Parts: sequence; C-alpha cells; structure tokens
Amino acid sequence: MTRYHDQIAEAAARIAGHARVTPVMRLGSGAFGSEADISLKLESLQHAGSFKTRGAFNNLLSLQVPEAGVSAASGGNHGAAVAFAARERGVKATIFVPEISPAAKIEAIRRFGADVRIGGAQYDDAQAACDRFVAESGALKIHPFAAIETILGQGTLAREWHEQEPDLDTVLVAVGGGGLISGIAAWFAGSRVKVVGVEPEHSRALHAALAASGPVDVTVQSVAADSLGARNVGPLVHEICRDTVEQVALVPDAAITAAQVTLWRDFRLAVEPGGAAALGALLSGAYRPQPCERLGVLICGANVDLAKLAALQG
Amino acid sequence: MTRYHDQIAEAAARIAGHARVTPVMRLGSGAFGSEADISLKLESLQHAGSFKTRGAFNNLLSLQVPEAGVSAASGGNHGAAVAFAARERGVKATIFVPEISPAAKIEAIRRFGADVRIGGAQYDDAQAACDRFVAESGALKIHPFAAIETILGQGTLAREWHEQEPDLDTVLVAVGGGGLISGIAAWFAGSRVKVVGVEPEHSRALHAALAASGPVDVTVQSVAADSLGARNVGPLVHEICRDTVEQVALVPDAAITAAQVTLWRDFRLAVEPGGAAALGALLSGAYRPQPCERLGVLICGANVDLAKLAALQG
Repeated sequence: MTRYHDQIAEAAARIAGHARVTPVMRLGSGAFGSEADISLKLESLQHAGSFKTRGAFNNLLSLQVPEAGVSAASGGNHGAAVAFAARERGVKATIFVPEISPAAKIEAIRRFGADVRIGGAQYDDAQAACDRFVAESGALKIHPFAAIETILGQGTLAREWHEQEPDLDTVLVAVGGGGLISGIAAWFAGSRVKVVGVEPEHSRALHAALAASGPVDVTVQSVAADSLGARNVGPLVHEICRDTVEQVALVPDAAITAAQVTLWRDFRLAVEPGGAAALGALLSGAYRPQPCERLGVLICGANVDLAKLAALQG
Repeated sequence: MTRYHDQIAEAAARIAGHARVTPVMRLGSGAFGSEADISLKLESLQHAGSFKTRGAFNNLLSLQVPEAGVSAASGGNHGAAVAFAARERGVKATIFVPEISPAAKIEAIRRFGADVRIGGAQYDDAQAACDRFVAESGALKIHPFAAIETILGQGTLAREWHEQEPDLDTVLVAVGGGGLISGIAAWFAGSRVKVVGVEPEHSRALHAALAASGPVDVTVQSVAADSLGARNVGPLVHEICRDTVEQVALVPDAAITAAQVTLWRDFRLAVEPGGAAALGALLSGAYRPQPCERLGVLICGANVDLAKLAALQG
C-alpha cells in the first residue's frame, strides 16, 4: 500500500502554492482531560474552508480541462473547493447543488464565480443532473471521493502533517465518502502511524464497508450529514482502507455537537459538525488513547453558519 | 532596551505549560493582494481567547498571591484571562466589570469561576471599585498593561514568534493600552525586526503619547473600543515604546471590520475587532510593506459574539 507514496509526493509538488500549508497546534498532555499528547491539525483554515481544496487542485492540475470546464455535484465543501480551484485556474465550473443545501453554502460556491445550478431535491438528483451535464457538455467531472486524483490530493495533507509532526502515533480523521481517509491512510501505510476513522453512528459508510468486506449502501441521519453523509464509499476507498485503516470509531451526534461547542469555547475555532467529528471521538470515549500516545486530531472543515454555531453555545 | 530580554526569557519559562504555544500560518506572497511575504500569528487561539493570558499568568506566577486572591477591572479580555489563570492556579479572582460590558464577555469571566461584580457605568467606575476592593481586602491587583509583570508576560509572545519565524522583517501589532506592544517591542529591540503598532483612528493613546513625548489622555470612539479603547498608555508603556516602536499606523473602523470579514470569509478565523485591527492596517494601506518584506501580522484576540460576526458577513 506504500505504492501511492510517490504519487502523493507528486501531487504535493503539483498543488504547492495553490493549497495552503495549514498549521498544527500542539496541546500536549492534559488537553480535553486526556492523558494523551494531543495536537490539532487545523485544516479548517484551508482555502475554501476545508481539505477538499487539495483534491480539487490535484484534479485540475493533473487532468486535461476541456473548454466546457469542470463540473461537480455538491451542495457543500467539495462544490466550494472545485469552484475555488477553477477560479484560480481560470476555468469554468458548473456546480449542481440539491435544493436542501444551506443558502450560505450555495452563496459561497457562487462567490467563487461558479455557475450554480439547482439539480433537484436531493444529492442523488444533483449527481444525476451533473452526469447529464457532463455527458452533454464534455465538461470534466470532479468526483468528491471515488477518483484517484481526489484521493491523492487529500493524501498531501498527511504528507504535510507527517513533516510537521514526525513523532505521531495515531491520527483521528473524520470520514464521509472516504476520500480524505484513503489519501491519509495511503500516505501513512508502512509507517508507525495508526489511522483511525471517525464516523457518525448513523452515517457509517466506511464502517459498514469494512464489516461487509465491500462497499454497501447505508442510511444517513446525522448532524454532520452535509459533509459526512455519503451513502456508499465505493470500491476504491474500500480497497485502500481495508488494508490501512486501523479502526473506525462511531460517534453519536451529541458528541459531534459537544466538540463544536468545545472548539469554539476553549479554542475560538469555529468549525462545522464534520470538522469537529474527529475530536468528538476523543471527547466521547469512542476512541480511547493510551497515556502519552501522540495523538493528532484533524480539524478538517469550517464551513459553518456562524449564527447556527452561536445558537449551540449555552 | 535589550535590558528586558532576560526577564522575558524568565517569564517564558515561568508560564510554559500554562499559556499555549500558538501556531503561525505562513501565507507567502500574494495573500491579501500584497507583494509582501505574509504570515499570521494566531494568538487568538490562546487560552481565554487572547494574548492577555500570558500576562495574567506571569503576574500570578511571579508575585505573592494573598489569601484574598487577585482582582482586576475589565469587562473584556483581561478580565477573562485573569479569571482563567486564577482558576488554573487555584486562587480567588474578583473581577469588576462596567455595566456596558457585553453579556457574553461577562458570562465568559463568570464561567472561569471568578466573582464578577458590576463596578459602575463605565470602565473608570469599575477601575475605582476595583481599587477600593483591593485597598479593603488586600487582594493583588493585576493591571492590564501598566505593570512590568504584565508587559514581560506579553513579551513572551514575541520570543515564541521569533523562534517560529527567525526571518521576520516587520510585525504588525494592535495597540490598546500598550502592554502587548511594549512586551513585543522590548523583545525585538536590538534585532532587525521592526515593530509597527496599529491603533484605531479614534482610539490612539500610543500615537498621541509618542507625538506628545509623554502619555496624554485621548477620547475613544471605535468599533474595537472594547479591547483597544484605552484612554492613556501610562508612563511605562510610553518609555518602552518611544525607543522601540518604529511607527504607529492609524486605521479607520471600516478597515477593522473589513479585516474581520476577510478573516472569516477567507480563513475561517472568527476574531474580534481588536484581533483583526493589525490586518486592517495592511488591507487599508495604513501600513504599506515593501515587496518581499517578511511581514508578521498578529491576530491577537477572538472574544467575539458569533451572532454579531455573522451579521457582518454580507
């Protein structure tokens, strides 16, 4: 599984200067009442507010972009990242969003200059509309997690993190469709670093795939559904993760919300539910580190409605 | 002026493990449309939401704390920092707040376990009530900026920053009462790093003191008044800054608000007006760096009401 190392290093060289190097904050022992030696990787400070920007740039910079530009179906972070990367590269982006997408996220995608189209009621409808558009226009489709270019782009996060923190024992990584954890686990494969996935209890596409030894559909119901709500991880993510992911911890929605509240109250980090989920696994005990374990917690996205976050604070 | 170096190093050793080491985010050239080589020091992620925690701990750890505990007058960051540090050290804190303090800030001070007392209508009334309490109770008063222990504590920020970024040419630092910039300028004195203060146009206690060759009263009217609204920097701050601060840039309130909006929109950093003021000097052109100048911008506080910040985003 170390076969992706060189490709991730190439992706890192490709997107350097386009995606930000995001900082690590070392907290040491005692943080969050844990005896582990904890640090936070603040990928929430990435361009367009999430790690998705890495994968978006790796697609746009490694594939031939046709006249019709790029297209994606996403009412959230992937759509924003593709729109951002397309603007930076001077190519057209057509983003299909479902009607259920929050107005704030749609507005962010539009602000990056994308052609935003309402693609039906649900995510699957938007996906279908995107597929029709791609077939008709010849635009390049940027998949949020099932494409190797996307996974390699997300893997650059792990390479950067590993350079910043060579002594990590374990990383906690939130999982939606699994593109992020696949890239991260592919990088850390063969190293001493354990990769632990974190999914909402009721949005567990990777947990289910690993249990079933193959991708399966799950039902999705979570406060983090707008970023972690994939129904199926697909074959490539399953193939990478089955050999490289140590375990998948499942967290209740209450732990995700508690992590959001803690990150704002104690760190002044305003993050979205999916961005706080990895910390939720620590706070809830869904993942229990050893004393002195060097534990990296990935804060992966911050596209949150501030007024909603304000309402969570008690 | 390098005479404070050893004392700042001692303060850093004293507060290590109590105040957080906050991360630096390197942006390189092109950020904010500038040709300077820019980085952000994210002190907004400090315990209790601002740099004030450094000075608070340096006071509590270097001075004898009497049975009556510590006391301060502040409806804002200093009050929260003293309350936080007192709780961590297991001593009593009595914080006098003016009636004009936002409920959210008062609540934060109370959450850290302090005895919060309403000390009259305005800050000066709270200060007077605090002085009476200190005289009667024997509590230790922690001054927000005019005490050397406070200044040396804030100076640890510069020492940490300098280690993280040895190649800085210039730092931009917001100024309220001047304790922060005094500590920072005392550390960088004798080095190649230029220290540039940033004050709101209509809250310019340091600018006025430097112009008058001595501390003078100014009137205060700024969107950042709750953190930068000191009326007089006092003699110690003036004495340190007159020899060590390169210049003080004045920024209009609109630039401060624009910096807050930019930091959330493009970085997902939710900060208060005073925490964004230094960046406001860059955005507004109040400070114009040279091409390739290695410019560190200090983001110094984040105790903002999220609902209010949400209302700023357009």
